[in-house]
Amino acid sequence: MVYEGITFRGSRTGQIRQSRFFRESLQPDEVVIKVTHSGLCGTDLHFMMVDMVLGHEGVGIVQEAGGGCKTLKVGDRVGWGYTYGSCGRCSACLTAHESYCPTALKYGAHHLDQGSFGNLAIKLEQWVFKIPDGIESRYAAPLLCGGATVFSPMIEFLKPTDRVGIVGVGGLGHLAIQFAAKMGCDVVVLSGTEAKHEDALMLGAREFYTTDGVTDYTTLNLTKPLDSLIITSGAQSLDLANYYKLLKPVATVIPLTISFENLVAPFIPTIANGIKIVGTTPSSILIMIQTLEFAERNNIRAIIQEFPMTEAGIAEAIHKLKNGDIRYRAVLSWQESE
Amino acid sequence: MVYEGITFRGSRTGQIRQSRFFRESLQPDEVVIKVTHSGLCGTDLHFMMVDMVLGHEGVGIVQEAGGGCKTLKVGDRVGWGYTYGSCGRCSACLTAHESYCPTALKYGAHHLDQGSFGNLAIKLEQWVFKIPDGIESRYAAPLLCGGATVFSPMIEFLKPTDRVGIVGVGGLGHLAIQFAAKMGCDVVVLSGTEAKHEDALMLGAREFYTTDGVTDYTTLNLTKPLDSLIITSGAQSLDLANYYKLLKPVATVIPLTISFENLVAPFIPTIANGIKIVGTTPSSILIMIQTLEFAERNNIRAIIQEFPMTEAGIAEAIHKLKNGDIRYRAVLSWQESE
Repeated sequence: MVYEGITFRGSRTGQIRQSRFFRESLQPDEVVIKVTHSGLCGTDLHFMMVDMVLGHEGVGIVQEAGGGCKTLKVGDRVGWGYTYGSCGRCSACLTAHESYCPTALKYGAHHLDQGSFGNLAIKLEQWVFKIPDGIESRYAAPLLCGGATVFSPMIEFLKPTDRVGIVGVGGLGHLAIQFAAKMGCDVVVLSGTEAKHEDALMLGAREFYTTDGVTDYTTLNLTKPLDSLIITSGAQSLDLANYYKLLKPVATVIPLTISFENLVAPFIPTIANGIKIVGTTPSSILIMIQTLEFAERNNIRAIIQEFPMTEAGIAEAIHKLKNGDIRYRAVLSWQESE
Repeated sequence: MVYEGITFRGSRTGQIRQSRFFRESLQPDEVVIKVTHSGLCGTDLHFMMVDMVLGHEGVGIVQEAGGGCKTLKVGDRVGWGYTYGSCGRCSACLTAHESYCPTALKYGAHHLDQGSFGNLAIKLEQWVFKIPDGIESRYAAPLLCGGATVFSPMIEFLKPTDRVGIVGVGGLGHLAIQFAAKMGCDVVVLSGTEAKHEDALMLGAREFYTTDGVTDYTTLNLTKPLDSLIITSGAQSLDLANYYKLLKPVATVIPLTISFENLVAPFIPTIANGIKIVGTTPSSILIMIQTLEFAERNNIRAIIQEFPMTEAGIAEAIHKLKNGDIRYRAVLSWQESE
């Protein structure tokens, strides 16, 4: 049997080009997925100048399952995220931190011939997750990287009693607010713009502070300091020293957005206040399952803008994402409605 | 200055008797509380045959604060719970587990001349907690032992991703359902009677199973096994082996109700499945504050029946509690309304 499909690739010029997916065989531990939806993630922007198939928030239907597959079957509605495989034997894999496995297969480094921008993908069953019935595919897609990215550190490092600061109300931030609120936290939002005030409260924040033009965050006059801070924007000019003014001692700082610059923290305040700065990467297996289950159970839904899965649709979504015009997560789909 | 008030004591016959509270002086670290409300807790039943002032879910107004008090002032609305003091220097005290301090002052062992059944109490400021504005006093009282009892192990041992079984829908159980649901857990209720099915779902449970007449819990056919089990009833005939049939491996079992018999667990299944049985006692300082804050923020309210703070009112509430006729927590109050 031969597996053929359509995919969409980045290119040196940044233009999105349709390409052809082709595989001659299926391994026993793999499943073939007919892709119906894909989220568009900020990380995709980093790779659009690379000649590789884009997209890592894929949702679709299992078309075929290899002979060794144990949990998925033809017809299952499934999704996958940033990581595609891991060794299964290292300490990271054996402590439910598979996404930190030194040999993990990851978006941008492996499976460059396929992605969720396309209509066909072949993935290891172990790294493909059933979508709960209560979540429509279009809403499942943004959970598979965006949702897991924000929920993973919350479950590992936060408690429902925390007063949590969330910096930025965008693709990640608008999900972070919902996840934190639905685990009972006291959610405080810091945003560069007052324009998102109402949305933040609607999503579950209890307080909102605009940082636009504020040079000294002490003057934000938070009613109470924060136990933890989740940074979903502003990595390029991340001024941790300023954020520290908002924190309780032994607070946890979780930078989620990517910068290729250094992460710079004020040395003595970090030590003196016992601040923990925690790096985190999404999509270990258990947290992927838990993200989907928690979102279904607690009615967490991304606010999405839909685009057709075409060269033009992808280009438009990318253009809007670059310009900060997506409210709040773009989803590409083959059908306009299901 | 002399401090005089009315209190209500247990007695060898179990009859509730009005008595007189009298103190000649106030220590600098103490506050005088004019009691307005008290919860009635199952633990009070254990002490009603003892000649001591009953009640340990007290709410009232600070009438006077000793010269050394730092956080409370006259007029503050406050409450206290099961523990009244601790050494502050042992490992339990220094790890926010003050209620396990070997020299902790506790209900039934210390302060026998005062309690929350009365109109006046004098407590160490350190062990008196401000009631958040959003919680009426009548609803605050049941949180100070009942609420903290269920929330304390949840925050220490559970995660918002847990599928939690709650055994019993009573004074503790109906609060446990709310706290677990509001921290995002998948809440499954096991009750001796189908009569509480609707209440359990209304409080936040997603599944309900009646154990009445069921000798083998395997036949309950839970849709999925449980990560943790909180037992709020049935301590007298607690059949852990049967409950184990409902659990995932390495599940956590938290028995909250008191029995003077032994806690008996099946040996090999405990070891073979890595089950954790966790003893827990409420009212360490931080969790008392967090219980009140979390309840206010997430709109958790006990369902209460109110009784007047009189010999007859207390006797009636106790009678109903003994007979299982309270839905779901009795509150005594000096005024019928505030």
